[in-house]
Amino acid sequence: MSQSTPIVPVILSGGSGTRLWPMSTPAMPKQMLALTADDTMLQLTAKRAQGEAFAAPIVVANARHVEMVEAQLQAVSAAPQALILEPTGRNTAPAIALAALEVAGETPLLVMPSDHVILDVPAFHAAIQAALPLVEQGWLVTFGIDPHAPETGYGWIRIGEEIAGGVHRVANFVEKPPLDAAEAMLAAGDHAWNGGIFLFRADAYLAALATHAPEMLTACEQAIGNARREGTRVFPDATSFAAAPSDSIDYAVMEKAERVAVVAVSMGWSDLGSWDALHEISARDAEGNAHGAQGDGEVIAIDTKNCLVRSDGARIALVGVEDLIVVASGNDILILPRGRSQEVKALIEAMKR
Amino acid sequence: MSQSTPIVPVILSGGSGTRLWPMSTPAMPKQMLALTADDTMLQLTAKRAQGEAFAAPIVVANARHVEMVEAQLQAVSAAPQALILEPTGRNTAPAIALAALEVAGETPLLVMPSDHVILDVPAFHAAIQAALPLVEQGWLVTFGIDPHAPETGYGWIRIGEEIAGGVHRVANFVEKPPLDAAEAMLAAGDHAWNGGIFLFRADAYLAALATHAPEMLTACEQAIGNARREGTRVFPDATSFAAAPSDSIDYAVMEKAERVAVVAVSMGWSDLGSWDALHEISARDAEGNAHGAQGDGEVIAIDTKNCLVRSDGARIALVGVEDLIVVASGNDILILPRGRSQEVKALIEAMKR
Repeated sequence: MSQSTPIVPVILSGGSGTRLWPMSTPAMPKQMLALTADDTMLQLTAKRAQGEAFAAPIVVANARHVEMVEAQLQAVSAAPQALILEPTGRNTAPAIALAALEVAGETPLLVMPSDHVILDVPAFHAAIQAALPLVEQGWLVTFGIDPHAPETGYGWIRIGEEIAGGVHRVANFVEKPPLDAAEAMLAAGDHAWNGGIFLFRADAYLAALATHAPEMLTACEQAIGNARREGTRVFPDATSFAAAPSDSIDYAVMEKAERVAVVAVSMGWSDLGSWDALHEISARDAEGNAHGAQGDGEVIAIDTKNCLVRSDGARIALVGVEDLIVVASGNDILILPRGRSQEVKALIEAMKR
Repeated sequence: MSQSTPIVPVILSGGSGTRLWPMSTPAMPKQMLALTADDTMLQLTAKRAQGEAFAAPIVVANARHVEMVEAQLQAVSAAPQALILEPTGRNTAPAIALAALEVAGETPLLVMPSDHVILDVPAFHAAIQAALPLVEQGWLVTFGIDPHAPETGYGWIRIGEEIAGGVHRVANFVEKPPLDAAEAMLAAGDHAWNGGIFLFRADAYLAALATHAPEMLTACEQAIGNARREGTRVFPDATSFAAAPSDSIDYAVMEKAERVAVVAVSMGWSDLGSWDALHEISARDAEGNAHGAQGDGEVIAIDTKNCLVRSDGARIALVGVEDLIVVASGNDILILPRGRSQEVKALIEAMKR
């Protein structure tokens, strides 16, 4: 991979999802956890954008996680050139705007959520390489994930005409569809999942914002202009940033901008949006069980099949169970059947009451 | 209930069973746990032999549990008249011999394991009352549990001729039977389970020992004769006691003695020999779930049926599971289906390897 200006990875670490509760919590969100390997999701994200094609990353994170983010990235030689600490969450469009303003100019930005799995990194790099010529011409590029199921939890992208090798116009974006629509798109073969990974020049993104979300741009410009800085830590001005409308890059920019392209790629992607998703991509033993790679929690499984068992400390003993998800973290234990891990959200709501 | 000499309860607390692992451990055996109520099994045992018919108990326990036994009994105003601390376990016959030697004479002894459930205490007291006239004549009386299942894990008693109101000769004892034999005994209706609860005069038991296990009696006499005493604590001489053959009261005495009677009683008895047994006798909610009464472990159960869930601290969240036993204690979590809790023993063996 080579081009004149190194790509700046922009790693979005602002999420505080609890779909992997009890391991994932606001204090220890999913990206900070080692779920699929000895490295955390954040570390794996940084490592897949290292090498001569890439500059040091810009990381946008929640201020409460600053030490943890720095420690994890330093541990994999991925210390950020700037760590932008959001005073409040404003969704992805303003977060990316802060990063784009930090570098400005024609620098290509590779925007990546910090908590996704990509098993086939060479395929990812090839997709980036395919996208670069159009990016240099000012296109906004999204990576479309080759779909293998009628997922109703993702946005979809209808792939339009090819405009360069492996790069197509986005015909249109499709919001999270009902099942029959998802099945139709899967069958049609001309759709991809919207994986939330983007490549564009900083100035191209800012120009699109100026057209489609001018208030957001102004708020972010003021937030960065009045930012407090401590070494590589950037604290955007809270009052200015609070004025930015909260919106996703998809709604605010991608669905409205003119020159938007998609590179479809099959790269072993998962957003790890549930414990079921983790079981799906995990290494499993002969009985189909995935026992955690992380932490020191011993698992003893007798006559046990197709279970996901994770522990950050407690010893878990199973006898004669099948298709169960068991997660022990801190003082909490979660037990539910495989296929129902989407209900963790409802469970957390029930616990709040 | 009334008779000339108050009955001395003899509470056997030497067991260190692990069938209720992970709550029950050698350091914290079943009798020390509050499994069915706010009181522990030991406390409930002591409390069901309180009142004017009873003297203060003699407790035979493992020396390692001395402080815990004393604290639990004092908390329910059942401080023992003697706490005999076995230097090693020698099964029930020598343990009861130590207690019998401690009181001697014609004092009636009510021998009770410390970890059984008796829900209907008035029925138990009525059975004691029925047995007393024969006990005063020197008979050895066992309480036969009215059977309601073809249990292969218990010894059985064939009930012989009636010799007084509600009291029958023991025709013979039956060792843990195969299933077909258990089914036949249940169908025949003339058998009872051997619950391991006995009533006899101290001198009658010692006389039977002199006839049928003279070495055991001699060893126990020396152990008590040379015992070290600290207040109510009795430390039998270890060398003497080690010479006592290890044997149960059933094998050593009851199956061999002449005047052995049984009082059949239906009193909500359970030996709580497994987590399934605890689920069976526990109060359950409308969905059939039994959540622990003990400790501070919160349980959140959504769409969950017929489960036993116990925690001594961890919060357990269940969604969409049925017929599961979940027990969290200390650093351990046990998960298995109802009906398989007999496999805890095999599990513990597997963990040792």
